[in-house]
Amino acid sequence: MSNYPYPIKIRAVWWNDSSKEVCWINTKKLPFDEEVICSNDPGRVAKAIIDMEIRGAPAIGVAAALAVASYAYRISGKLSREEFFREIENAVNVLWNTRPTAHNLFWALKRMRRVIHDSIENKLDMSEVSARLEEEAKKIMDEDIWSNIRLGEYGDQLVPDNATILTHCNAGALATAAFGTAEGVMRVAWYKGKKIKIIATETRPVLQGARLTVWELVKEGIPVTLITDNMVGYIMRKGLVDLVIVGADRITREGYVVNKIGTYMIALSAKRNNIPFYVAAPTSTIDLESTINNVIIEERNPDEVRKVIDKYITLPEVPALNYAFDVTDPDLVTAIITEKGIVKPPFDENLRKILS
Amino acid sequence: MSNYPYPIKIRAVWWNDSSKEVCWINTKKLPFDEEVICSNDPGRVAKAIIDMEIRGAPAIGVAAALAVASYAYRISGKLSREEFFREIENAVNVLWNTRPTAHNLFWALKRMRRVIHDSIENKLDMSEVSARLEEEAKKIMDEDIWSNIRLGEYGDQLVPDNATILTHCNAGALATAAFGTAEGVMRVAWYKGKKIKIIATETRPVLQGARLTVWELVKEGIPVTLITDNMVGYIMRKGLVDLVIVGADRITREGYVVNKIGTYMIALSAKRNNIPFYVAAPTSTIDLESTINNVIIEERNPDEVRKVIDKYITLPEVPALNYAFDVTDPDLVTAIITEKGIVKPPFDENLRKILS
Repeated sequence: MSNYPYPIKIRAVWWNDSSKEVCWINTKKLPFDEEVICSNDPGRVAKAIIDMEIRGAPAIGVAAALAVASYAYRISGKLSREEFFREIENAVNVLWNTRPTAHNLFWALKRMRRVIHDSIENKLDMSEVSARLEEEAKKIMDEDIWSNIRLGEYGDQLVPDNATILTHCNAGALATAAFGTAEGVMRVAWYKGKKIKIIATETRPVLQGARLTVWELVKEGIPVTLITDNMVGYIMRKGLVDLVIVGADRITREGYVVNKIGTYMIALSAKRNNIPFYVAAPTSTIDLESTINNVIIEERNPDEVRKVIDKYITLPEVPALNYAFDVTDPDLVTAIITEKGIVKPPFDENLRKILS
Repeated sequence: MSNYPYPIKIRAVWWNDSSKEVCWINTKKLPFDEEVICSNDPGRVAKAIIDMEIRGAPAIGVAAALAVASYAYRISGKLSREEFFREIENAVNVLWNTRPTAHNLFWALKRMRRVIHDSIENKLDMSEVSARLEEEAKKIMDEDIWSNIRLGEYGDQLVPDNATILTHCNAGALATAAFGTAEGVMRVAWYKGKKIKIIATETRPVLQGARLTVWELVKEGIPVTLITDNMVGYIMRKGLVDLVIVGADRITREGYVVNKIGTYMIALSAKRNNIPFYVAAPTSTIDLESTINNVIIEERNPDEVRKVIDKYITLPEVPALNYAFDVTDPDLVTAIITEKGIVKPPFDENLRKILS
């Protein structure tokens, strides 16, 4: 494991070297309970992703990769070679089909598939395959942390001292392997001594802002103030926000940003009030293959909207919509902060450049 | 009481003729409990307004007026004439200081004060004063219902058949004496046979959309779908909304609309997506005296943000902002629907005209 230049206080997903399992903080129970779960069962990890025990595009990708490796160890030597690979491929498919929107999941699983295919081609034995899968998954995890640190350092250049930064949902340590994307920028600015303040939206329906971002920033010691999602426009209008930094679940080649539902309205409010709107995401979030029309926006169980933390807030039988993500147009985005540098418009041109 | 041209299924605030008390539905307990409270204690009614048992600009005005009348009956004959009037003035002051933003409260209490001053001048006896105050308060109540019906009929002209209308908070029967402002328009369209559908935002922090608008529309039989506040932009972008109708707590002479927090972001989303944004409000909401800089935007207890229906959703010690209202600029408003007609821009000119 690398020597990071900043403290890593929170990890969302990690590898247990002795048990060869993937471990995670159950973010559904935060901030009230800090439950850790470990597993080498891809079905269990898939469930954790679907149920949002593990959430955030980079964290999902890392968890899925580690789950494949842990499963390889679990079944290695217990099956025929053929069955072994069939099982591993099945595990990849189960993880692939958990959530449709975040690009990092597919990016990470494609990397794991490449290792599987190379292993088949090179006729590696099962224990060697397991070791290679572990190596690749840990590389994905470690690269994620380093990406966040590097993008944090790029992003820090955009953060004035004493700035108030508004963020949405949780693009923090809890959305990545560690350190965070939007929160990665905040962490670098903070560790460099800038007196920043954060405004966190609660982020209905699942309350990642109120539950996770608040918990994470309090743990880090960075001052944070909570608002409801619908308060963003007014506090911008009052001059209480200097810049916005959010994460992303997918960025298309045209520069459309797919992120947690509500991001689009924040971007519109920022534009209206001349406030810079930054998106912080590793390049693994950038999808050069899709146009915005191909991206599936996940619709989740309407009970998430009808309830708040398991309690109905409305008539239980009323219909509800529950789009998990929305789409922010390129013209509303000031810049995209990646581990390879800051990408400015025109995004269709410059995203391609930074990935080449 | 008048003969209304549409069914009046829900009343938020009314006068009990036998007990000479003001009665209201405790909207804090809806949709789970339909509790009715009656009182002739202005302190109790003030508390009901502060705690939002009674809420919605027109409903607050009506309740305050009825509270003054009921108190007059309560103390009539039990005090000296001088003490009687001092007590009534005190009651007006207590009610005046409950909530700072809604204009209708001040408008209604000014009307009650006029009756008090006329009574003093004309040397009316206490029982006569009580009767005059009752008459004026009931007039305010009945005018409110008629205003809603009339503005509903004007607004109906703007609603196409099969339209999907998005609304925010509750500008319904539960925000007025009865019938509603935004919901008044929906009711007229519905009773005229238009197959409208409503999308209601949940309206954090107090959830008037999820709790009140949903309950009210289900009771009326009008189809309603619930969304989170941050979903508005995305569903507009997807073409799921034909028009927006919201209420108002105050409209300044320049045409700034002060309404429930979140209204501004809805207006920005509507503008971006070329969706008409209508404000439905009786002329008692229009404040020709204030400019937007004089309007006090109420800040409420941050625990409303840290909690959902009495349960913490975040770390209890985290700071939170809780602005109850926001400001929507005149250029984002397509038209204002009043009981005297539809007011179009330029609002600074046309609001004055309609009130003259």
